[in-house]
Amino acid sequence: MARYTIGLDFGTNSCRALLVDVGSGRELATRVFAYPSGSDGVWLDPAEPNLARQDPADYVLGIEEAVVGVLREGRATDPDFRPEAVIGIGVDTTGSSPMPVDGAGQALCFDERFRGNPDAMVWLWKDHTSYAEAAEITRLAAETRPHFLSKIGGVYSSEWWWSKILRCRNVAREVFDAASSWVEICDWIPAVLTGNLEPASIRRSVCAAGHKAMFHPSWGGLPDREFLDALAPGLGALRARLYSETATAGRRAGTLSEDWARRLGLSPSTAVSVGAFDAHMGAVGAGIAPGTLVKIVGTSTCDIMIHPAGEPLDDIPGVCGIVDGSVMEGYYGIEAGQSAVGDLFLWCVNQLAPAAYGGTPEERFDRLGQAAAQLRAGESGLMALDWNNGNRTVLVDVRLTGLLLGQTLHTQAHEIYRALMEATGFGALTIIDRIEEYGVAVREVVNCGGLAVRNPLLMQIYADIAGRPMKIARSEQAPALGAAIFAAVAAGAAAGGYDSVAEAQRAMAGTGRVFTPDSRSHAVYRRLYSLYRRLHDAFGTPGGSGNMYSVMKELLDIRDEVRRT
Amino acid sequence: MARYTIGLDFGTNSCRALLVDVGSGRELATRVFAYPSGSDGVWLDPAEPNLARQDPADYVLGIEEAVVGVLREGRATDPDFRPEAVIGIGVDTTGSSPMPVDGAGQALCFDERFRGNPDAMVWLWKDHTSYAEAAEITRLAAETRPHFLSKIGGVYSSEWWWSKILRCRNVAREVFDAASSWVEICDWIPAVLTGNLEPASIRRSVCAAGHKAMFHPSWGGLPDREFLDALAPGLGALRARLYSETATAGRRAGTLSEDWARRLGLSPSTAVSVGAFDAHMGAVGAGIAPGTLVKIVGTSTCDIMIHPAGEPLDDIPGVCGIVDGSVMEGYYGIEAGQSAVGDLFLWCVNQLAPAAYGGTPEERFDRLGQAAAQLRAGESGLMALDWNNGNRTVLVDVRLTGLLLGQTLHTQAHEIYRALMEATGFGALTIIDRIEEYGVAVREVVNCGGLAVRNPLLMQIYADIAGRPMKIARSEQAPALGAAIFAAVAAGAAAGGYDSVAEAQRAMAGTGRVFTPDSRSHAVYRRLYSLYRRLHDAFGTPGGSGNMYSVMKELLDIRDEVRRT
Repeated sequence: MARYTIGLDFGTNSCRALLVDVGSGRELATRVFAYPSGSDGVWLDPAEPNLARQDPADYVLGIEEAVVGVLREGRATDPDFRPEAVIGIGVDTTGSSPMPVDGAGQALCFDERFRGNPDAMVWLWKDHTSYAEAAEITRLAAETRPHFLSKIGGVYSSEWWWSKILRCRNVAREVFDAASSWVEICDWIPAVLTGNLEPASIRRSVCAAGHKAMFHPSWGGLPDREFLDALAPGLGALRARLYSETATAGRRAGTLSEDWARRLGLSPSTAVSVGAFDAHMGAVGAGIAPGTLVKIVGTSTCDIMIHPAGEPLDDIPGVCGIVDGSVMEGYYGIEAGQSAVGDLFLWCVNQLAPAAYGGTPEERFDRLGQAAAQLRAGESGLMALDWNNGNRTVLVDVRLTGLLLGQTLHTQAHEIYRALMEATGFGALTIIDRIEEYGVAVREVVNCGGLAVRNPLLMQIYADIAGRPMKIARSEQAPALGAAIFAAVAAGAAAGGYDSVAEAQRAMAGTGRVFTPDSRSHAVYRRLYSLYRRLHDAFGTPGGSGNMYSVMKELLDIRDEVRRT
Repeated sequence: MARYTIGLDFGTNSCRALLVDVGSGRELATRVFAYPSGSDGVWLDPAEPNLARQDPADYVLGIEEAVVGVLREGRATDPDFRPEAVIGIGVDTTGSSPMPVDGAGQALCFDERFRGNPDAMVWLWKDHTSYAEAAEITRLAAETRPHFLSKIGGVYSSEWWWSKILRCRNVAREVFDAASSWVEICDWIPAVLTGNLEPASIRRSVCAAGHKAMFHPSWGGLPDREFLDALAPGLGALRARLYSETATAGRRAGTLSEDWARRLGLSPSTAVSVGAFDAHMGAVGAGIAPGTLVKIVGTSTCDIMIHPAGEPLDDIPGVCGIVDGSVMEGYYGIEAGQSAVGDLFLWCVNQLAPAAYGGTPEERFDRLGQAAAQLRAGESGLMALDWNNGNRTVLVDVRLTGLLLGQTLHTQAHEIYRALMEATGFGALTIIDRIEEYGVAVREVVNCGGLAVRNPLLMQIYADIAGRPMKIARSEQAPALGAAIFAAVAAGAAAGGYDSVAEAQRAMAGTGRVFTPDSRSHAVYRRLYSLYRRLHDAFGTPGGSGNMYSVMKELLDIRDEVRRT
């Protein structure tokens, strides 16, 4: 009899349930639930553009709507499907998205006192209100605990755990004081499903704890109390109410509570996996293995590799996070990324494309893409740096900006659009080169995420730039599939699941379409990449310089050669 | 009794007659005639985008239509006006715009054999078909006659006289062989009006001869026969059929022929001045004097100064032309320029502005300008190089391209638009600095041309960048007024005109609106200008380098400081 698991993927605007056949990886059904509150699920503040919060009540609603819905659709698709055959549930979420909770583990915003108070809600990953606190944490760590920074690429982010908690303490003292503990939503949702909500008993994901909370066994887990108190009195006292142990995804958070089993129509023996962030589970859903780089290509890009924990691995400068078990047990997770990819294209479509490309963003995307696809590598004479939102890997510097070079009076928007695509491809290759320079071979690249599915031109450009095949994950819902894979591991072989992530991946994950590099384009891109790297190093590294005159001239030489052929 | 002169200004798409009171400079009437042939007066070739020719029959038609029209309007404006009071006609034209003529001085394209043949028409200034010939002339001069190049900034242009004639010899041998001589249209039109059409008797303008034809007394006038024959056999033989003497504008080309006097309804004693290029006459119409820099700001910009011929003057590196008498007798003309100004803004309006700024180019110009005017210096964080069409002064390099730096995901088109305006302002200041470094003080800047009249934001930005008042010429038709001034000089004091250009200017020219620099903006622009110069030198000079990292960071520092205040 077939067995199934459900992957629950909590995104920024909606959550998704994916029902997967554990034996074949067949995706029987999927169901999306759009968060009803805020603006597309995000609470905003017109007076503070950095603010982005979420009401956790939306998640609770979403679990029920999405799971009940996907089970119904599963039966419609396959009359033999029975909910009793569901052996596990896995959860992935955005992050770092922490939330203050009371002593019972309930969201503070569920309390009458804090109802509707954004500071008592989820501080969503993209909330940047705590930029000053992030700088303060970086400064203090650089002065007193430099080893904290060596694991996170040198800079603590305003998107992360401690920045947000410190911010809450600084601006919403009553919320901070009322919080018994803080929980990442990837840990809170499994806790809700299993009913193990008491903060001390909530299993905490090593994926979230890793560099986001600066948790590391070598310094005894979370940062020491003295360090936290130096940031703000009272922060040290919170440490004891957080956690001292972490777990990897695939471990059991527990089984479904009686209440939730009834609400969802599933068995109370259904295993619930420890959660993790969406990118990490997406990497697993895309088939990550040693030597495989998984790129989750969306508004920004996350690059993930794993490396056997028993084998030596140096710190890789500029690569943000190397955490044991963050992706799967027994492996270091290596995490890198690009700050703007889809966002960069969207900027071009919305801010730089004249009406000739169409009235709606969708039309402009299409026509810019069609026109860009007609261009050959080097033909436009343009070169861009992909830093409109800073550079995460390898420069780890949010305070960088875009650059466009080579424009003439004839330059058109679709040429700029292609140059921006190419810039993200050069940025992607810079990351691959950096990882390989430090001894981790990249033998395969698998892409997933919205742009991997929807933008074949981008994937072809990446293949041509890197001179490597770009594989696309078979599943269009890699994070939810990853969550379903971890659910099968949490259920275990005895229940019809698997005892290791690798076994589950072999059965459930895989790649589909492959973009093969064109040798002629690659030859041009090798030359352009060397120019990109010269601009990259000149503008992106302290004291950076180099012969800029020859960069401009060589770009023209390449353009003229390409146009002649 | 009031006396009048007529300035005839032959532009790229139309010609204009301006009727001016010699005593007061009052502009009694103006009349524009659009050239009827070609596309807006320009003959194009869909297969050869570099080609731009003009049918001289349009000029002949234009003289009659515009002069008869302006006289009629003059009478309508002022019932006391009488055509007999017109004492002179002056002519300015585009250039270098040479034309092959027969032994009688008639355009070859008037001949049955060459009717409709673009190679037998006027080779318009913006015809770039002869780029290979220009490169060949530069190469040969660099090898064998380096002194030729020292007067023209080091590079001979495809827009100039010899490039076009050599091109004609290379691709239209029958036209070249049939040409008895070649004439610039600024010389041909006065010849038509006076009837002195025989090529040897046509008075040749020193303005056109100067660097455009590499005419210089120190090497005996035009380039020597040996040099020309080395370019192409037969070119040397042409030399003897061209000219060995030149004249400055304000000298008489003659008086109106009986035929033209009758056709126009003017006296045959009406003086006709030697012609000159539009920019040079525009400078005079704008009130040029020693210490005054006149900027003619349009699709490109031409910067003109004069320097007393008796005083020492070094070659100024990167300044294209220093020619004795090219602007007015007794002075060296100093000519510099920027390759794209209005063209750069038009590019932004047409290629980079989304529909939100309006449907028509006019609407987008307006709204981009309105939004750009709301920005403070440094606020956008953007910096551009104004090289989309190369850089004429001070780099003398057509093979340069644009650069845009500082863009984020929030950057909007009007911010880019303003950054492009600022880039042309920084380019303008670079020219002023270069001229002053070589000992020519710039004590006043007077702007004329379309953008000086129509774009107050641009003028304010220029004032703020340079930290100098930007004056606007009182006349909106500075070239035609300049031609009218020279007409008054050609007529002479005895006929009610003047005996010197300076006297005529005092009576007829002047400045109007003045844009005063804002000290706060200027302080920001001083810092931005130093960043511009660092980019300028790094990308624009051979071996150019410099700390680019700090350029990007300082741009952000300035932006953040401005936004805080």
